[in-house]
Amino acid sequence: MINHSMHSAEQLRERFEASLADWLPQGNPDTLYEPIRYAVMAGGKRTRPVLLLMMGELFGLSPEQALPQAVAVEWFHTFTLVHDDIMDHAELRRGRPSVHAKYSQPTAILAGDAMLVYCFGLMSRCPSALQKELIGSFVNCALKVCEGQQLDMDFERLPAVSVKEYLYMIERKTAELLAFSAYCGALLAGAGQQDQQAAYRFGKHLGVAFQLMDDYLDTFGESQLTGKTPGGDLFRNKKTYLHAKIREQADQQTLQTLDRLMSDTDSLRENLESVKNLFRSAGVDRLLQNEIECYSEAALQELKRLSVDPSRKKELGKLTETLKRRLA
Amino acid sequence: MINHSMHSAEQLRERFEASLADWLPQGNPDTLYEPIRYAVMAGGKRTRPVLLLMMGELFGLSPEQALPQAVAVEWFHTFTLVHDDIMDHAELRRGRPSVHAKYSQPTAILAGDAMLVYCFGLMSRCPSALQKELIGSFVNCALKVCEGQQLDMDFERLPAVSVKEYLYMIERKTAELLAFSAYCGALLAGAGQQDQQAAYRFGKHLGVAFQLMDDYLDTFGESQLTGKTPGGDLFRNKKTYLHAKIREQADQQTLQTLDRLMSDTDSLRENLESVKNLFRSAGVDRLLQNEIECYSEAALQELKRLSVDPSRKKELGKLTETLKRRLA
Repeated sequence: MINHSMHSAEQLRERFEASLADWLPQGNPDTLYEPIRYAVMAGGKRTRPVLLLMMGELFGLSPEQALPQAVAVEWFHTFTLVHDDIMDHAELRRGRPSVHAKYSQPTAILAGDAMLVYCFGLMSRCPSALQKELIGSFVNCALKVCEGQQLDMDFERLPAVSVKEYLYMIERKTAELLAFSAYCGALLAGAGQQDQQAAYRFGKHLGVAFQLMDDYLDTFGESQLTGKTPGGDLFRNKKTYLHAKIREQADQQTLQTLDRLMSDTDSLRENLESVKNLFRSAGVDRLLQNEIECYSEAALQELKRLSVDPSRKKELGKLTETLKRRLA
Repeated sequence: MINHSMHSAEQLRERFEASLADWLPQGNPDTLYEPIRYAVMAGGKRTRPVLLLMMGELFGLSPEQALPQAVAVEWFHTFTLVHDDIMDHAELRRGRPSVHAKYSQPTAILAGDAMLVYCFGLMSRCPSALQKELIGSFVNCALKVCEGQQLDMDFERLPAVSVKEYLYMIERKTAELLAFSAYCGALLAGAGQQDQQAAYRFGKHLGVAFQLMDDYLDTFGESQLTGKTPGGDLFRNKKTYLHAKIREQADQQTLQTLDRLMSDTDSLRENLESVKNLFRSAGVDRLLQNEIECYSEAALQELKRLSVDPSRKKELGKLTETLKRRLA
């Protein structure tokens, strides 16, 4: 293991962003590849590739050696956004028209398909000995992400889901890819099986914490900070932790009031503050904060388990702590 | 090489069909996996897996050993049908509602995505030494198929395309997967590089011939034999060989008449026979037949090149000849 110094998340994000354009396929026709470039070069936090590179570096792998796989997880994430935006009829993504809104729905379907294919090409750029393991794990991860998205859509048509069902869904839809990214970095760096598994669990807990934080900010965040319409999930009838948890906590009367306020979009628009207050008075905002703390803590526990010098873990620790600071 | 006796295409088709259900993933939620089973178990000629198994057997591989990859190419083909049907607004597929018509469009997008992912899992069930080569080639093939589909859609919005452009498109959209299937069978069976490349070209020529035959039958076939609405491609403004070729052959006046007759769906419905007669009097029906003969012949030439005993090539020869008989 080469114990070169660790980069910060921000340094790795910049390095990743700078090299992203080098991996764009230059194919024909442009009507297919231009939308792909538009989707991939739209910015974003690049959380998954950064996590992959950080975990790789933790075990002594230089960022350059893990770049194809880092690009693959980011492309996979972007592919899911392109297709999810079609399914959710979302016309905007990061302040710009979504791919299907800018081009067309058929092109967005096809561009997403090509991106998904391309991911597997990038993923397989690894030492032959790791090929089978890596492709197999990536297939499992990708199937779980599809399952999570289907569940998320199924939940929209249900009046309510339990906290357990909700967590099952976000573990697949959101956390699985973060778990895979962390695992993939460890695997590529030659970490042992126990470390690979701990890295996977670290990413999984972190992913659940991230999604729960999104839930919190979607309802209680300041829109000038989040850049999103407040209550966006509520308006789209997306189930969130808050929605699931209040069913476990509140009395029948509160739930009836909630159902009435959320009965349609117009009612919800008028009563958004009342809905928030219902969540607050049932205490589910604080229960959600606690849950985020618990998952972050569980992630930090897995980080501690990794068999490298604690001094090398500082950057991944910071990444995890960043979460809690967003709550403050 | 084990020189066991060769199976006929029909025997391999039956064997493949019988084992197809064994490869269905049993996942959760059913709202995702049920549509996948519906799409995969819809029957069909299973041309691609049969070609893969036949080519494998030619070089001494037993069908069982190539089953995962045979299932993969059929699943990939089915995935393209599921997504293409959304893009083409096709409500029927093999006499039953298409996946998006039966379930919903979001579910059809996602089921297709999961099928595409699953293909890569099946494809990678091969000896480690072949993994990189096989996944890399499959990625190239799948990207070309996406490119072909995008071109096919682009062509719908053009008044005309050249024969060269048209052939470029169908080589990708249709022939590439047949080429890959033949190549994949040869590769898995341990054939040498020259044989792999000849197998690839065999499949490519065969694929172009197949697509050209579809073009011919779509316009001139008896609907009771083809099971399709006559002139379906014309009504959807799909470019075909006939449409491309007549631009090279006919005078300005004929082309103006053609454009007028095809100016809208109502006009086309009334004048379908006149359009066919225009193709006939310009001679492009016979030129298309010639083209099919040429591509079939080119496929047979590649078959001859393969370094196995000619007696073993009979079944693949028959498969190629079947094409011409459909013309008679």
